Amino acid sequence: MPATTMPTLTTLRAVPDFAIGHVRDLRIRWALEEIGRPYQLRVIGPEEQNSAAYRQQQPFGQVPVYQDGEVVLFESAAILYHLGGQSARLMPEDADGKAHTLSWLFAAANSIQPALDPLTDLRSAGDAPWAVGRRADMEAQAHRKLAGLGAWLRDRTCLLERFTVADIAMAATLKVLDDAMLNAHPALAAYYARCIARPAYVKALADQVALYRGTGPH
Amino acid sequence: MPATTMPTLTTLRAVPDFAIGHVRDLRIRWALEEIGRPYQLRVIGPEEQNSAAYRQQQPFGQVPVYQDGEVVLFESAAILYHLGGQSARLMPEDADGKAHTLSWLFAAANSIQPALDPLTDLRSAGDAPWAVGRRADMEAQAHRKLAGLGAWLRDRTCLLERFTVADIAMAATLKVLDDAMLNAHPALAAYYARCIARPAYVKALADQVALYRGTGPH
Repeated sequence: MPATTMPTLTTLRAVPDFAIGHVRDLRIRWALEEIGRPYQLRVIGPEEQNSAAYRQQQPFGQVPVYQDGEVVLFESAAILYHLGGQSARLMPEDADGKAHTLSWLFAAANSIQPALDPLTDLRSAGDAPWAVGRRADMEAQAHRKLAGLGAWLRDRTCLLERFTVADIAMAATLKVLDDAMLNAHPALAAYYARCIARPAYVKALADQVALYRGTGPH
Repeated sequence: MPATTMPTLTTLRAVPDFAIGHVRDLRIRWALEEIGRPYQLRVIGPEEQNSAAYRQQQPFGQVPVYQDGEVVLFESAAILYHLGGQSARLMPEDADGKAHTLSWLFAAANSIQPALDPLTDLRSAGDAPWAVGRRADMEAQAHRKLAGLGAWLRDRTCLLERFTVADIAMAATLKVLDDAMLNAHPALAAYYARCIARPAYVKALADQVALYRGTGPH
């Protein structure tokens, strides 16, 4: 596929304040900034999310969708892997490096995120009875997963030997943690700080914030 | 990589009864049965799960780990994608087909499974106060995702044009649903029934059950 076409990234037209900085187009913006590839946004609202045409591109009506020429992809991690295959700056080019990048993309999506999802629910639930009875168990479960990840990162700069799209997915997944949870795992906190200090992340985040604060196109 | 080596699949030595049929080596066994590839099991216990050596292969101490010659992979969906790359019976060989298979592998792991996890927790919680207050919201959230998947499958036999490793991941993910949840989405129930009727699934499940019931090596 030629890198001369300008890809289109579909995201939401508007989101509640708490979602700003968390909409998953952020991960794709970040990867595209890392390789300096321009892109255009397509913003959609609820009516389009639920349209039959959009559901053919994204069966759950979610974002992002990524289109580059004939290729139309959904699920942010699948898009990240696709972009990784287009640039050695985002993923090793050997089969082993690709396979390990994919293991870590799934680890972020399926081993870490499911352990962190309940924390987000608990935060918004405050002192609701179900939340009070649930908090300790859910925090302990999250800490177990974070401890495994922290141990892995103790002597490493990145998940693999160097920065990859898996770090984009992992850092974006860790973004929901509050300071207390994150700082309980110092190697993890340091890793997260390194990831979000990258200029490509800073630019991607500013662009998403600008869209939703109404101060720019992207 | 030559297909002449016999790969090793690492799984747990023993699990509680409720986990039999759900340990994730099942997905890999299923894929290997689909292509008729023999494999050997390596069974481990808690001490090995927590060893530094095992954590280098699986940072969270989970199973499965898959080893084929020099390649050592973790996360069942990453292993499925790897196996898909080795046989056209498990994944299309064109770039577009591979990318869509990966989108659906992530959809199972990150769009469907997180919506179903709470149902499993709720089932084991019974009438605990937190569960009573939480059930309706969690079931509604699961139904929304299942409706999206059911609509996708209304006029399709498989997630893609034909059976792929994404169907293995999706069917295994849907396995936690009780009959009432599944049958509320007829196209999805029919899809699930087709998947689990496949001889490769039946064999893989029987082998996992036999291991944990103590009636066979695998």
